[in-house]
Amino acid sequence: MATSYNETTEFIDLKKDIDDMFLLINGIIVSFMQAGFACLESGAVRTKNTTNIMMKNLLDLFICSIFYYLIGFPLAYGNGNSFIGMTYWAGTGFQESSLAFWFFQFVFAATAATILSGAVAERCNFVAYIVYSGIISGFVYPVVSHWAWHEEGWMKNMGYKDFAGSGVVHALAGIASFVAAAFLGPRKGRFPGQPISGHSTPMLGLGALLLISGFLAFNGGSLGQISGPGDSELVARSMVSTIFGGTGAAIIALVFGRYLSDAPWPFSFTLNCTLAGMVSVCGGPEVYNSWSAMLVGAIGSVIYTGFHLLVTYIKVDDPLDASPLHFGAGAWGVIARPIFANDGLIYGNIDNFPTKISNNIIGLLAIIAWSAITSIILFGALKVTGFLRISEEEEIIGLDLSKHGENAYPSSAWERTSSSWVEGDILANSSDCKLEKINYDNYAFQMEKRHER
Amino acid sequence: MATSYNETTEFIDLKKDIDDMFLLINGIIVSFMQAGFACLESGAVRTKNTTNIMMKNLLDLFICSIFYYLIGFPLAYGNGNSFIGMTYWAGTGFQESSLAFWFFQFVFAATAATILSGAVAERCNFVAYIVYSGIISGFVYPVVSHWAWHEEGWMKNMGYKDFAGSGVVHALAGIASFVAAAFLGPRKGRFPGQPISGHSTPMLGLGALLLISGFLAFNGGSLGQISGPGDSELVARSMVSTIFGGTGAAIIALVFGRYLSDAPWPFSFTLNCTLAGMVSVCGGPEVYNSWSAMLVGAIGSVIYTGFHLLVTYIKVDDPLDASPLHFGAGAWGVIARPIFANDGLIYGNIDNFPTKISNNIIGLLAIIAWSAITSIILFGALKVTGFLRISEEEEIIGLDLSKHGENAYPSSAWERTSSSWVEGDILANSSDCKLEKINYDNYAFQMEKRHER
Amino acid sequence: MATSYNETTEFIDLKKDIDDMFLLINGIIVSFMQAGFACLESGAVRTKNTTNIMMKNLLDLFICSIFYYLIGFPLAYGNGNSFIGMTYWAGTGFQESSLAFWFFQFVFAATAATILSGAVAERCNFVAYIVYSGIISGFVYPVVSHWAWHEEGWMKNMGYKDFAGSGVVHALAGIASFVAAAFLGPRKGRFPGQPISGHSTPMLGLGALLLISGFLAFNGGSLGQISGPGDSELVARSMVSTIFGGTGAAIIALVFGRYLSDAPWPFSFTLNCTLAGMVSVCGGPEVYNSWSAMLVGAIGSVIYTGFHLLVTYIKVDDPLDASPLHFGAGAWGVIARPIFANDGLIYGNIDNFPTKISNNIIGLLAIIAWSAITSIILFGALKVTGFLRISEEEEIIGLDLSKHGENAYPSSAWERTSSSWVEGDILANSSDCKLEKINYDNYAFQMEKRHER
Repeated sequence: MATSYNETTEFIDLKKDIDDMFLLINGIIVSFMQAGFACLESGAVRTKNTTNIMMKNLLDLFICSIFYYLIGFPLAYGNGNSFIGMTYWAGTGFQESSLAFWFFQFVFAATAATILSGAVAERCNFVAYIVYSGIISGFVYPVVSHWAWHEEGWMKNMGYKDFAGSGVVHALAGIASFVAAAFLGPRKGRFPGQPISGHSTPMLGLGALLLISGFLAFNGGSLGQISGPGDSELVARSMVSTIFGGTGAAIIALVFGRYLSDAPWPFSFTLNCTLAGMVSVCGGPEVYNSWSAMLVGAIGSVIYTGFHLLVTYIKVDDPLDASPLHFGAGAWGVIARPIFANDGLIYGNIDNFPTKISNNIIGLLAIIAWSAITSIILFGALKVTGFLRISEEEEIIGLDLSKHGENAYPSSAWERTSSSWVEGDILANSSDCKLEKINYDNYAFQMEKRHER
Repeated sequence: MATSYNETTEFIDLKKDIDDMFLLINGIIVSFMQAGFACLESGAVRTKNTTNIMMKNLLDLFICSIFYYLIGFPLAYGNGNSFIGMTYWAGTGFQESSLAFWFFQFVFAATAATILSGAVAERCNFVAYIVYSGIISGFVYPVVSHWAWHEEGWMKNMGYKDFAGSGVVHALAGIASFVAAAFLGPRKGRFPGQPISGHSTPMLGLGALLLISGFLAFNGGSLGQISGPGDSELVARSMVSTIFGGTGAAIIALVFGRYLSDAPWPFSFTLNCTLAGMVSVCGGPEVYNSWSAMLVGAIGSVIYTGFHLLVTYIKVDDPLDASPLHFGAGAWGVIARPIFANDGLIYGNIDNFPTKISNNIIGLLAIIAWSAITSIILFGALKVTGFLRISEEEEIIGLDLSKHGENAYPSSAWERTSSSWVEGDILANSSDCKLEKINYDNYAFQMEKRHER
Repeated sequence: MATSYNETTEFIDLKKDIDDMFLLINGIIVSFMQAGFACLESGAVRTKNTTNIMMKNLLDLFICSIFYYLIGFPLAYGNGNSFIGMTYWAGTGFQESSLAFWFFQFVFAATAATILSGAVAERCNFVAYIVYSGIISGFVYPVVSHWAWHEEGWMKNMGYKDFAGSGVVHALAGIASFVAAAFLGPRKGRFPGQPISGHSTPMLGLGALLLISGFLAFNGGSLGQISGPGDSELVARSMVSTIFGGTGAAIIALVFGRYLSDAPWPFSFTLNCTLAGMVSVCGGPEVYNSWSAMLVGAIGSVIYTGFHLLVTYIKVDDPLDASPLHFGAGAWGVIARPIFANDGLIYGNIDNFPTKISNNIIGLLAIIAWSAITSIILFGALKVTGFLRISEEEEIIGLDLSKHGENAYPSSAWERTSSSWVEGDILANSSDCKLEKINYDNYAFQMEKRHER
């Protein structure tokens, strides 16, 4: 073999560069999901709380970054024992060569924390938001990702399989969302009464579409590399499964949506179903064929709907349906994998099935228990100390004005001609009002003419 | 030659991984065009039909996925004869190694279907939308892509050249849009009368900007690979041509826009022109130099304008101008290639020109005929069966309320303090209203103080 | 060494393809920053000037492309002397193999021009916008990029280091923004008086989030390649530093924001601080560790705040705070590099420090002088010739109606049922109003029923 050592090194180096590019570009696209969540959540709340939800989504990446850097990544991917990692505290000893991996894991972690902000919308204290975001992305989620994805992790070594975080990200965040919403209590006027409408379906829709595109990178990037033999096929399959998970769910939503609504084709319900479908396939997007992905997504949307009805029935107010969507579809995704994978039950592979499904169920139960216990402590402590919920007065006024001093749509900016200049020194005398009137009419006339063409 | 077989395999494998990454990442970026179309189209309709247009854009990817999977891809890229492919039905026999290719072709197909939703906006029945989306993305478009892009296709073998679908995607979708709009008939009050304004220019503008960025991946990704010698230069050239196509069109819009409008610098017209310019270069972005791309785009925007005036003159109501834009600029793009390509007429290559241009014109006429006939059957059948258009009553009320039960901007969510809580059990007595009043004034006072800083 | 020449060529070719893919994909993601700026700026202005700001952002890429093609790129990356490049005029002699590089540099240049549109918002003439955009992206910025980034450039050869344009892009654009805003004069009613609120915090927030994601590609892509040994680590580090720059700034904004505002957690201020933090690290994102990036970002946000207060104090009206943000944070970023880099002052490398910091300060002063002088000439000439500012009448009416003839939110499109059809020929008689009324009530009733579920 005449190939020199140096040449082989170059080839390996190039593969490393390609894998890093893959992680970094996918990481950037996943970061667009923050814009997606921001649109989705702002569309789903009332105008009086819209600046608040934007503020939270703006800060998610940054709050997560510090906590994930200090303790989150060390707990998740540090070397330690089967329960937690214990190296790389605040970056100590961390190899620069793994930084692309760090970046991708970080945007993943930020997504987990972001899910909760929907559940606590319109009534959560801002300090509580900062505290829980840090603890979810810096502690609760990282520990579970160590269990499931680090080579030392007890769940990984047991045989728990969850490719893109159906359980690790979504079921975990869904449980935390439920606990948070339950401890917070419903928004004023939610129970008994009608659902509280959000203020903008275009923002809802734009948010969902950004999330769908981001989801492709979220699931596709989860392989963590693309330069190995067959890697690119697994990545492609993961992305295609993500679409088909949404497809199965969309079909369910279109066929059955009308039974849950007086409207023939409910929008918000369909939107949530498609997201639930994509969450459902996170457990095994690389091992589903197209039909399996559709089935998993379709069942996932039914399970989401069931949890939605349950959460509403027990009067837990989750404005974005984060808990039924992410827990319901996420938990199902963990269970679905051993059934629908290309080496799973539906292909007649019965021998290994009991082991596989019990591994995944045990893992899921551990995730549920861990997330529930830590969330109860976290949100319980916030509640007891009075930091969790805003005052009744602030809720009536809205968070935008009471916490941020900025209305989402200030009326002064929406007047046809802002009255603010009237108070200015330049145009203080009243004749200007006349000037304005005349000119506006003049322009209105021109506009009318224009419309006649 | 001492290189072992294994080493060569590794190199080829790596190139495959790189090409797949190229297709997958570009495919994700093209999928952001769905968000772009959603914003563009929602901005161009009235608030009473905004939820509806968002619903359609949300579902495009999913509806397309199932139809493209079952029959679209098989017809397009299956092996068969020069007219249709006939393998891979519902994925049968499909090689996993081509899945990245499938994914990119799928997001392309979804784009074709999405174009129509603008033309049928504000009056199309929802069932009709589902039916036509499936048939366009699963049958009409795939057959033409077999003709033009599959190695068996008669147009490809004849010498028809259309790099990124100026004819295959845009002229086809433009014709279908025209037929759909003509069969539907105009919106109430459109003729005679003024153009019906959309409800949000910021959404229009955001949509256009997302489409522009997505278009770079749409045209650049059309090469399908980047690892061959010279590939990356063709990809770069395709992206640069896309920009310059828009540039030429923007110049035309700025110089001539005022003659079509009483306003000095019309916005919507300029926006449509830039999109028309980018559509125009789709026929040959890899073979234009910068000046050619600008000229092609500039002429494309003039042709779009001509078709816009024609469509308006014959009283076909196309709310998004989808048919003049995509057909006018798309058809021009097919013709422009043999003229402006780097081996084209303007470089004095006269010998081959008659063959080249006639090949492209024959192909274009075939696309027009195919799209017109299939669309007439499709939309004719929908019209005859009464599924095509909503009732007069529903149109007056708007699709959002009549079909989806969700207003785009529910007034209850836009009140400064939602009245919904008043009906709640907690705050039923009237004294709370006073509480609210007092506190709000209190806050208003604080805000005033704040503004004085 | 048995490796044949051909094999080596293939490997080098592949690396070139990978680097080009890296530049092109990052370039596309940077182009999404145009959508980010569009949202940010439209959210920060009043509704009467929203179409105008969207128009500008729509055209930025296209106006920049022609000027950058004709003279900008030649001045920047042509071969010439240490002050300007003098080849490639209008693409002459340009090698197609460098086109991916051209594309990335072009989207960079477009960003520089876009920054200014915030500073001149709500009162700048449209012709002036076209002129200054062309001159900034075609002349002012390219000359400085020749100085700093071309191998001939005097600043580069002196030892000025500025990885992603803290000085070259941001300080330059910040100075030009300040000059533009100063020559324009404040908006009516701005001084004395309260700040003029923008019309939509959701658009502000969405814009910031798109900018954050785009910034990752802006800073990460600045290396220009990823296939060399260690390249991917530098790219990853650049992206991570970008996040941490925002993190440091966000912490400052949360801790100190309330002292600049009566509100506990001001939104717009926090948003601007995070952007300032990310601008601050542009000078050396590849050489900061996580703590350094946080510190640089934190200090950058303080400096931005100082300049914000100063600009307000001297009554220069910059609606988007473009000048304090981009100049303050950008200038700081140039100075910060020699201090906080991994071979900088804080690591005890005192010997080289005086040289390094003086190189960067000299470069920064040259950028400031160049940008100030050219901007004063540019905006002075526009002012003297009367092209700079719109008339008082147009300002009162708003740019949307006076310049573009299109309101951002036309009231006709926002009525529950558009009255436009009443004027149509079909429904001209008054009984239709009754029809509408009845049906609407009917639907309202159904909706009520629906809400009871």
